[in-house]
Amino acid sequence: MVEALLSGVGASRVLTDRNSRGSYARDQGPLTEPAEPAVVVLAENVDEVQHVMRCAHRLGVPVVARGRGTSLSGGAHAVPGCIILSLERMNRIIEVRPQDEVAVVEPGVINADLNLAAAPHGLMYAPDPASHAISTLGGNVATNAGGLRCAKYGVTRDSVLALDVVLADGTLIHTGHVTFKGVAGYDLTALFIGSEGTLGIVVGITVRLKYLPVETRTLAAFFPDLPAAAAGVLAIGAARVQPAILELLDGNTLAILDAAFDSHLGERGDALLLVQTDGFGAAAEAAVVQEVLRAVGATVEAEEGAEAGMLLDLRRNARGDGVDDDFRVGEDVAVPRSQLVHYAAELERIARDLGVRLRLVAHAGDGNLHPTFWVPRDEGVAGTSRLHAALDESVKVALGLGGTITGEHGVGQYKLKWLPWEQSPDVIDLQRRIKEAFDPRGILNPGKAIS
Amino acid sequence: MVEALLSGVGASRVLTDRNSRGSYARDQGPLTEPAEPAVVVLAENVDEVQHVMRCAHRLGVPVVARGRGTSLSGGAHAVPGCIILSLERMNRIIEVRPQDEVAVVEPGVINADLNLAAAPHGLMYAPDPASHAISTLGGNVATNAGGLRCAKYGVTRDSVLALDVVLADGTLIHTGHVTFKGVAGYDLTALFIGSEGTLGIVVGITVRLKYLPVETRTLAAFFPDLPAAAAGVLAIGAARVQPAILELLDGNTLAILDAAFDSHLGERGDALLLVQTDGFGAAAEAAVVQEVLRAVGATVEAEEGAEAGMLLDLRRNARGDGVDDDFRVGEDVAVPRSQLVHYAAELERIARDLGVRLRLVAHAGDGNLHPTFWVPRDEGVAGTSRLHAALDESVKVALGLGGTITGEHGVGQYKLKWLPWEQSPDVIDLQRRIKEAFDPRGILNPGKAIS
Repeated sequence: MVEALLSGVGASRVLTDRNSRGSYARDQGPLTEPAEPAVVVLAENVDEVQHVMRCAHRLGVPVVARGRGTSLSGGAHAVPGCIILSLERMNRIIEVRPQDEVAVVEPGVINADLNLAAAPHGLMYAPDPASHAISTLGGNVATNAGGLRCAKYGVTRDSVLALDVVLADGTLIHTGHVTFKGVAGYDLTALFIGSEGTLGIVVGITVRLKYLPVETRTLAAFFPDLPAAAAGVLAIGAARVQPAILELLDGNTLAILDAAFDSHLGERGDALLLVQTDGFGAAAEAAVVQEVLRAVGATVEAEEGAEAGMLLDLRRNARGDGVDDDFRVGEDVAVPRSQLVHYAAELERIARDLGVRLRLVAHAGDGNLHPTFWVPRDEGVAGTSRLHAALDESVKVALGLGGTITGEHGVGQYKLKWLPWEQSPDVIDLQRRIKEAFDPRGILNPGKAIS
Repeated sequence: MVEALLSGVGASRVLTDRNSRGSYARDQGPLTEPAEPAVVVLAENVDEVQHVMRCAHRLGVPVVARGRGTSLSGGAHAVPGCIILSLERMNRIIEVRPQDEVAVVEPGVINADLNLAAAPHGLMYAPDPASHAISTLGGNVATNAGGLRCAKYGVTRDSVLALDVVLADGTLIHTGHVTFKGVAGYDLTALFIGSEGTLGIVVGITVRLKYLPVETRTLAAFFPDLPAAAAGVLAIGAARVQPAILELLDGNTLAILDAAFDSHLGERGDALLLVQTDGFGAAAEAAVVQEVLRAVGATVEAEEGAEAGMLLDLRRNARGDGVDDDFRVGEDVAVPRSQLVHYAAELERIARDLGVRLRLVAHAGDGNLHPTFWVPRDEGVAGTSRLHAALDESVKVALGLGGTITGEHGVGQYKLKWLPWEQSPDVIDLQRRIKEAFDPRGILNPGKAIS
């Protein structure tokens, strides 16, 4: 296999040494089935990706594509004997077209770098996962990544217009349209987005850019407890104001941030709603938000310039204390907005009942919650079994409220066990038929996302 | 077959008489291959739809689903010997959930009726095809319908969260999620949206509602000619203001509206940009729009209340003078925004060169143009051959500029001839494989959308 790969990719970018294989073996998600890749290929262009897929297809070898490996669900974990196809070197911004309000990028471009390139034109790429400074657009596409600004601006799928995709047999296709609208044929673009590398390898991405807001206003609303803050989210909704950012942080998260960054958030309350309005109506919207949040008992302060930016950066770093493992898992459920208060209370109950620690951040405007459960490492198996019981219960309760097992991280490898709790056998079967139509030999990221 | 159908659907709703079959034989699109259905079934619930599909699947009979038959591409035209499965009687709004900001509807609900139900809660269903008063949400989903407000609020796909779908063999599945975000498994919801009844029959639709704007401002900007108005669209974009509505109407359209509705638009200029801003920033945005449009030579007037509504109603009726046929066809291309000025000029050139009449309306904010070409009926074949040459040329030029053959109407039956101009054989083949995976017997709206 290595010989076949070398016939189309430079030797210095076909890595078989133990160190390389080890360092590309996993992403940031919990790891249930450790595996080693046979080889790591650092592709630099579309031809090389096609070459890798042709080899893999001929030889029946599994291929796991990855960007920077920031997945939180194990979507980029190696499978035994696979080719890791790293796209991190395909990191060129091909073009930014200010009049068309689109950009064309390679999959290895970092999310934040595209925003840096778009900003001088008064444009932005809206979906901003908390990992925006380290995650690639290819990875964002693979998981249909969300982020902070999604409540107003939508998720990755809503910003992607067209894709270049290398199929399982090496065929290169182009899906979608550069125009904002287009309905010719099936929506293959949407089908590839979120398919976690199981249907094809995305090698080019055309995105729609949105307008950089002319103005933003940031409010920090502190509440005496978590359910009160969750109720604040509903109060903003009832006022029919759509913030660009509406993040909820619980007291444990504030304590961790204060310890890590020497801030003093915990002194101001036991739960924080971080609200940003933007655009021409930013000030008027912020005024309404302030009024309704005060009416439900919040202490609301307008944050200016650097301070506001710092608060948002803190939020983006709220999960940033390492890789998930057996003793700590960050979850990613979503529930209908009306259930936020109830679900927040349920999370606290679950943690209490099962004796695990909990902290919570949430893209509250979307009803997308990231509870992190953890147990002391020295408890060993006793701790991890309580941890997993809490995770299972939190997912079960979310589904019972009409929620989903994953709002934005993807199923990957780790959440496969929960997929049949959400989807019927008929739906799972239909997805397998699609997979079979795209990848009859089953070489694209097998055992992930759907099966 | 009729006997089989009667075993699960009331006799009064299984129509075999000539009149009924005739009146359900076509939609509002151009008709290239007239055909008669064998039978028309007026389904009233999901069980009946499942029964129809089970019968059709067993007997290998084609099924063409339809709502109100307002398609402009022939997606709902009968195919020979088919069952027409009308969903117009499945028109209940199951629920509007104001706190969750979602609604659940049957496919036969009229778009405007959902908006009437949502408005008391301060909510709206954003996608508003010009046919919103007569077209069904099932039809909107089938074609991924666009509309006037899409520049800001997105198309149908961006507002649909979940679907209930009856598959070719009668199996009922549920796709998607009630939550705003959700990435479990493949995006089957997006795959069904825009598939024009070729992958399954949509029997339930869960939509996300958006906030009714607190304020709107409407501007009418008149220009001396069409290219100047198209340049106005780019000027608004360059100012990075996102109107909710940004419609372009040419002089011939104004003349037709004036004749039909006794208005006097044509006296004010030879091209009109109709701009509506909305939300908390509506006034500030309108002020910027007014300034930039005046700077490029427009006469801009703010329209108040009833007048503004009348102008928008006129625009929605701009195509409303009958069904397309051999002598008149309305097109639906989209081009990248930067090409609007050039493409508008090209359309005028094509009409001139080929001796056909032209009028143009456009969802200009999206680069989605609806030129209507027509020739005098008494010219017979000579006229229609010039008409078709103009249509072909207008599509070819749009594609050459990076555009698409259909921005929002769908491929249906009429635009199949142009699909290979836009999509590669590999993409068309991939879509056929998807179709095969969903509908192995090929009974769902055969010969439409992709093949």
